[in-house]
Amino acid sequence: MKTYTVADLLKQDTNSLHEVEVKGWVRTFRANRFIALNDGSTLNNIQCVVDFESMDDVLLKRITTGAAVHIVGELTESQGKGQSVEIQVSKITVLGDSDPEAYPIQPKKHSFEFLRENAHLRTRTSTFSAVMRLRSSLSFAIHKYFNENGFYYMHTPIITGSDAEGAGEMFRVSALDAKNPPLTEAGEVDYKEDFFGKETNLTVSGQLEAETYAMSLGKVYTFGPTFRAENSNTSRHLAEFWMIEPEVAFMDLDGNMDLAEDFMKYVLKYVLDNNPEDLEFLNDRLLQEEKTKPQAERSEMSLIEKIKFVVDNNFKRVSYTEAIDILRNSKPNKKKKFKYLIEEWGADLQSEHERFLVEKHFNCPVILFDYPANIKAFYMRLNEDGKTVRAMDILFPGIGEMVGGSQREERLDVLKEKMAALDIDEKELWWYLDLRKYGTAVHSGFGLGFERLVMFATGMSNIRDVIPYPRTPQNAEF
Amino acid sequence: MKTYTVADLLKQDTNSLHEVEVKGWVRTFRANRFIALNDGSTLNNIQCVVDFESMDDVLLKRITTGAAVHIVGELTESQGKGQSVEIQVSKITVLGDSDPEAYPIQPKKHSFEFLRENAHLRTRTSTFSAVMRLRSSLSFAIHKYFNENGFYYMHTPIITGSDAEGAGEMFRVSALDAKNPPLTEAGEVDYKEDFFGKETNLTVSGQLEAETYAMSLGKVYTFGPTFRAENSNTSRHLAEFWMIEPEVAFMDLDGNMDLAEDFMKYVLKYVLDNNPEDLEFLNDRLLQEEKTKPQAERSEMSLIEKIKFVVDNNFKRVSYTEAIDILRNSKPNKKKKFKYLIEEWGADLQSEHERFLVEKHFNCPVILFDYPANIKAFYMRLNEDGKTVRAMDILFPGIGEMVGGSQREERLDVLKEKMAALDIDEKELWWYLDLRKYGTAVHSGFGLGFERLVMFATGMSNIRDVIPYPRTPQNAEF
Repeated sequence: MKTYTVADLLKQDTNSLHEVEVKGWVRTFRANRFIALNDGSTLNNIQCVVDFESMDDVLLKRITTGAAVHIVGELTESQGKGQSVEIQVSKITVLGDSDPEAYPIQPKKHSFEFLRENAHLRTRTSTFSAVMRLRSSLSFAIHKYFNENGFYYMHTPIITGSDAEGAGEMFRVSALDAKNPPLTEAGEVDYKEDFFGKETNLTVSGQLEAETYAMSLGKVYTFGPTFRAENSNTSRHLAEFWMIEPEVAFMDLDGNMDLAEDFMKYVLKYVLDNNPEDLEFLNDRLLQEEKTKPQAERSEMSLIEKIKFVVDNNFKRVSYTEAIDILRNSKPNKKKKFKYLIEEWGADLQSEHERFLVEKHFNCPVILFDYPANIKAFYMRLNEDGKTVRAMDILFPGIGEMVGGSQREERLDVLKEKMAALDIDEKELWWYLDLRKYGTAVHSGFGLGFERLVMFATGMSNIRDVIPYPRTPQNAEF
Repeated sequence: MKTYTVADLLKQDTNSLHEVEVKGWVRTFRANRFIALNDGSTLNNIQCVVDFESMDDVLLKRITTGAAVHIVGELTESQGKGQSVEIQVSKITVLGDSDPEAYPIQPKKHSFEFLRENAHLRTRTSTFSAVMRLRSSLSFAIHKYFNENGFYYMHTPIITGSDAEGAGEMFRVSALDAKNPPLTEAGEVDYKEDFFGKETNLTVSGQLEAETYAMSLGKVYTFGPTFRAENSNTSRHLAEFWMIEPEVAFMDLDGNMDLAEDFMKYVLKYVLDNNPEDLEFLNDRLLQEEKTKPQAERSEMSLIEKIKFVVDNNFKRVSYTEAIDILRNSKPNKKKKFKYLIEEWGADLQSEHERFLVEKHFNCPVILFDYPANIKAFYMRLNEDGKTVRAMDILFPGIGEMVGGSQREERLDVLKEKMAALDIDEKELWWYLDLRKYGTAVHSGFGLGFERLVMFATGMSNIRDVIPYPRTPQNAEF
């Protein structure tokens, strides 16, 4: 007798299969008769029907929510609704008990906050198992997309000796004695004595290293963890998150926009095609959640409609300069509803402005491009106007910034000037400058925050609920 | 006119395609006439034939090794050997020059040590581009295997608050002032003031967290970076390396061995099928390298033969107890050639013993299992004999330990006893113990060091040469 997964069994018809074995966890046990059994292979449970009259009472009492059981029985057509097959149990063995009084995951609605405190058990709920299956499916879609399009996956270093990436505050990595580190004669911490012989930090981006590989292998991407030591206790920030960073030689900013849009549509279409059950469940969950909100705050579209909208429609491409015009003349600006009023070209856009553009004005994903040079990073390609750079941000409704990218400055002299103006040491980035000395060429790339993509695809509103074990200020539990 | 990759062009026939555009880097420029152009899309170069008589001398001088060029021309059947097509150049534009005096990557053989110092340019050589394409291909094969077999990809945390993983020395992660950290009244570093409110380190393994997901989602795997702050300056150790860790509910050690063997055969077969050119190049490279060695030290099999041997043959499964018998009675033991002589059951195996078993005695991959409990980790399932645990190591010829795995101790009381004996705080691992309280079941998994797999598949003998930017003691460059 073969042991099947629940997903396998639910696909069978009863003509071809009779005696079956399955192992899983009890979700509910109703009327001393109906076990809803789940093994994680699918959102759905298989119903296992127990003949309680012929069964030992002690054994029946051990069939509780959370218990691991081994079931043998006959696969039959189900009389109940919502399932095509069920198992008439002939033998049940309890592999692991679950004390119904003590078990934290009761068969009722738990708050997300409670489930975060029990993150080691939260994938035993339908919501979190669906979220994490979608996270896995999106990950695979990402690798599949790049593989089909001639990209090589590259592992950029996590521990970095460079602090010139400039994307944010960094965590220090050290093996020195924390209390009494060795000091130099000048009284500073002597990192020469540390493991790597220099000060090291956790990476904030793999982009600079990815550029080195793009300039030899052509098309590469990273998909790995990145870090920010910023005290941002919001529902959109993590101290540790996963980022996808493609980098392509001979590609300009227009190509970069095309790539980002094509990529996002592909991975979202992939989950529409491959995870219909998980998406429908999360779609319904979000509808229920929104019912508790005032009408005006509810979304016009359901989760699945939002995903389909992105897959089926072009992203709107708008220059920073056009965006500033729109914002300057907008109602909230004129009525002074914005916290930061838009007065002049050159202003950095705040999340309230981005939300207005995406959620009110355009009502679709927006690619903003050609930003003022002085609000963007040193490595971005300066336009001929001398004041804007070939940068792009992709903004999503409900999420905000999903992607940040640019064409990279490929001209050695311009790059050096920029670094000098910002006091970035050339010695620190000698290898990065080498790329402009030997066979330089136009190249571009972007970074996509993976958890924000998962938020969009699952409708979850707190980033802590789309990664297994979130790291945030004051929290590194599990 | 469409811009093609070199890989695309080399697959074309000249009847269907005439005028073409291609961008890439000059590998060599021979006789003022033949450019070998590479763009990273394949190991191979496309030959571009220049009519030097009709071309500007200044332009010709700029066609140097490493220069980035844009070529327009006609695709024709090649007269030369080793290629089916070539381009008759009608127009060439230099995108980025490369000073032939200064460019570090000359068209000659460089030592691997020199190339490590120029790791940002080393993928511009055939050897390293082949290695990194294979690394990428193996990565994709890994995701593909697990996806096809019902596993979910899980991102376990990189920053961990737990130091109970016990797999090795850890790096500290901190945002405290390095020189004057805040101290408690007792004079110890006050980690309550640190970013996460506790002492945190870089993970040495995602296994414990992966177990939490296996016990709800059934089959999961991790593929992420792990760290060891150990001062091991060898050709087989890195401070930062990538590990694959599957974990499966309801699977015992036999299933674990089956999974590991099936998995390794699949990913190696994948590169045999998908990367023939890169493998043939590395195969020849290794043959050349071995010619410089005395006959006795050369391998009996070529690289491709070794990979095929693993794909086509069963791994030998041997208990620790059998292995000790073999070693005790072996020639090197009797003749006292081993540095550590095997005298008694219970001895930890050293790499000399593993090599003897794999390379001399069995001459194939070996799975050793059922090790003495006291030389293995606390979480491994104790056998009924009370002295061995359900652990396994997979040893590969030329590589040594590739995989370490076990069935996990699923019994709460036994696990608690083991932790108490090793002084591991239950409070630290409350969530891990919860898995044994609520619906516990047999489960197993293993960890595979990705770089060792890449070494095996590429024939590279130094682990620093199979990861883009290696982190080792005294080295975190780039």
